[in-house]
Amino acid sequence: MTTRWLTPKEQRAWRAYIASAHLLEDALDRQLQQDAGMPHMYYSILATLSESPERRLRMTDLAEQLKITRSRLTYAVTRLEKDGLLRRENCRWDKRGSIAALTEEGMAVLEQAAPGHVETVRASLFDQLTEEQVDQLEEICTGIARALESDEARPAADDVPWRRRSSSPS
Amino acid sequence: MTTRWLTPKEQRAWRAYIASAHLLEDALDRQLQQDAGMPHMYYSILATLSESPERRLRMTDLAEQLKITRSRLTYAVTRLEKDGLLRRENCRWDKRGSIAALTEEGMAVLEQAAPGHVETVRASLFDQLTEEQVDQLEEICTGIARALESDEARPAADDVPWRRRSSSPS
Repeated sequence: MTTRWLTPKEQRAWRAYIASAHLLEDALDRQLQQDAGMPHMYYSILATLSESPERRLRMTDLAEQLKITRSRLTYAVTRLEKDGLLRRENCRWDKRGSIAALTEEGMAVLEQAAPGHVETVRASLFDQLTEEQVDQLEEICTGIARALESDEARPAADDVPWRRRSSSPS
Repeated sequence: MTTRWLTPKEQRAWRAYIASAHLLEDALDRQLQQDAGMPHMYYSILATLSESPERRLRMTDLAEQLKITRSRLTYAVTRLEKDGLLRRENCRWDKRGSIAALTEEGMAVLEQAAPGHVETVRASLFDQLTEEQVDQLEEICTGIARALESDEARPAADDVPWRRRSSSPS
C-alpha cells in the first residue's frame, strides 16, 4: 500500500494541533497542580463523579466517559483513594465490577479548584475563539471522536471499555 | 472576581475536545507502541531531529519546537539515548547547552515507523474532516497556541524554554 503522506496544508494543521494540545495540557496541569496538587486527568475524574447520581460510577463507566484506558484510570484512582478524595466500593449487582465514589473531602477539593480551572479553560481556549469557531471546534472534535470510537480495527480492546462494549452485546 | 463559568455550548465544545484529544492520543500511542515500541512523544522527538540541520538540535530548541517542558524532554531523551536512537553531545558554543543528535539507528526506526504513523493520523483525523475544516482547525489551534505562548502570567517559566526565551533578551 502506498503511504498517503500529509499535504503541506495538512502538515500545517497537524503541527498547529499538536502544539496547541501540548500547550493547553501544560497550562491546565500547571494551574491544577498549583491550586489543587493534581494533574488535569485527576481533576476530570473527580468532576465526572461529582456529576453522577450519588456521586459514584462504575470504573468501566468512568473510563468510558473520560475516554481513558483502564490502566491509566486504575493508577489515578489508586492515588486519589490514597489521598482520601474518593473511595472504591464493590458493585452490588456485578461481582466483577468496582465502583468509585467521591468523598466529602474530594467534593471540597473539587469545589475549591473549579473556579481557577474554568478560568484557565476560558482564558486559554474560549477567549481566543469566535462564537463560530466554538461551533466549528465542537463539530470537528465530535467527528474525530466518533470515528475513533467506532474503529473496529483497533487492537488492545481489552484495555478500552468503550470499544469492548460497543463490539459486544453484554 | 466572579467565575466566568462555561455556557452549555462551551461545555459541549470542551467535552468534545477533551474526548477527541484523549482518543487521538491513545490511537497514536497504541500504533507507535505496537510498531516502534515508543509513545507518540518519543516519535515526535526523533521526527523533529530528522528534519533539523545535521539531524541535531539543542535541547532547549527541541523543547521549544515540541512545546513540551524540559523535564518531560529530559526524561524522554534519556530513554531514547539508552536505546541508541539518539546521542547527547556538548554544545560547542554554549557551555550550558546540550545537543541531541539522531543516530543512524534512530533514523532507521523513524523511517520504518513513519508510514504507519501517518496512516493513523490520516485515518483518525484528516479522513474525518472537509477541506474547510482543515483550515478551521489550523486557525483555531494557531490562535490557542499563540495566546498560551505569549501568556506572561504563567508560572514555572524556568521549565518552559519558549516562555523564558520570549520574556528575556538572552
